[in-house]
Formats: sequence, C-alpha cells, structure tokens
Amino acid sequence: MKARVHVMLKEGVLDPQGEAIRHALGAMGFEGVEGVRQGKVIELDLAPGTTAARVGEMCEMLLANTVIESYRIEFV
Amino acid sequence: MKARVHVMLKEGVLDPQGEAIRHALGAMGFEGVEGVRQGKVIELDLAPGTTAARVGEMCEMLLANTVIESYRIEFV
Repeated sequence: MKARVHVMLKEGVLDPQGEAIRHALGAMGFEGVEGVRQGKVIELDLAPGTTAARVGEMCEMLLANTVIESYRIEFV
Repeated sequence: MKARVHVMLKEGVLDPQGEAIRHALGAMGFEGVEGVRQGKVIELDLAPGTTAARVGEMCEMLLANTVIESYRIEFV
C-alpha cells in the first residue's frame, strides 16, 4: 500500500522559496501568478495494514516540523 | 484559482533524500516502510482563466527539471 504525505509551511510562515519562484515566473513573462507556496510530498511504500495513525506518528516524529509545517496524509 | 503541481523524480532516478528518510524511519522503529520517494509540491495562486497548458509551460521552463523529474498538474 502507498501513502502520500503533503508537508506545507503553515499560513503566515514566510516561504522564501515560493517567493523566489513567484518572482522568477513574473520575470519570465508569466502574468497573473499571485502567490506561490512550496512544500514537500513524500511517497511511502508501506506494509499492508499500516494505519493512518501510524503514518501520523511518522509525520509528527520525522517528516514534518509541526512548529512551522502542517501535513496531510492521503492513501493512494 | 489555485493549481497544485507535483514534481517527482522519475522512476529509476536515485533519490538519496527519500532513501535517508526510509533509513531514519527504520532506525526509529517504524517497521514495514519498503520505499520512500520525496518530491516537491508547488501551490500556485493564479489569475482566473489561466489554462492548464500555461501551467504546463511554467513546469517545463522553471518548476521541473524534465530530464530527471516528472510533473503532474491538478486544479483545486
């Protein structure tokens, strides 16, 4: 089974990487890009029967820095 | 309108960051994690009417390195 974890900076946390992308897109002539946020996506190949709670523990302990990042788990 | 772009390393391209996560999870006692791939997710706030083709151009020109990365666009 496969899980996909999305890790994004929380609202209000400055995202210089996203800002750099926004600026670069503007400079390249892409108009109308009003905001960019960059995050991580982590795809996990898991043993069958792994629960969402277990994946949540992985996020809390390793995958996300919950002080500044939020995460979302999706099974695919 | 919002678009979400997922950028992942192509199959067969070595992913040392994913491998490091897999190893760390194992060391922390999380069993059964058979593989990990890490990618990027980029959330774009776009002017209304921006087409998927236009976002595709952004991916080809800036957001993804299409030699080693594949991308997927999703409107949310």
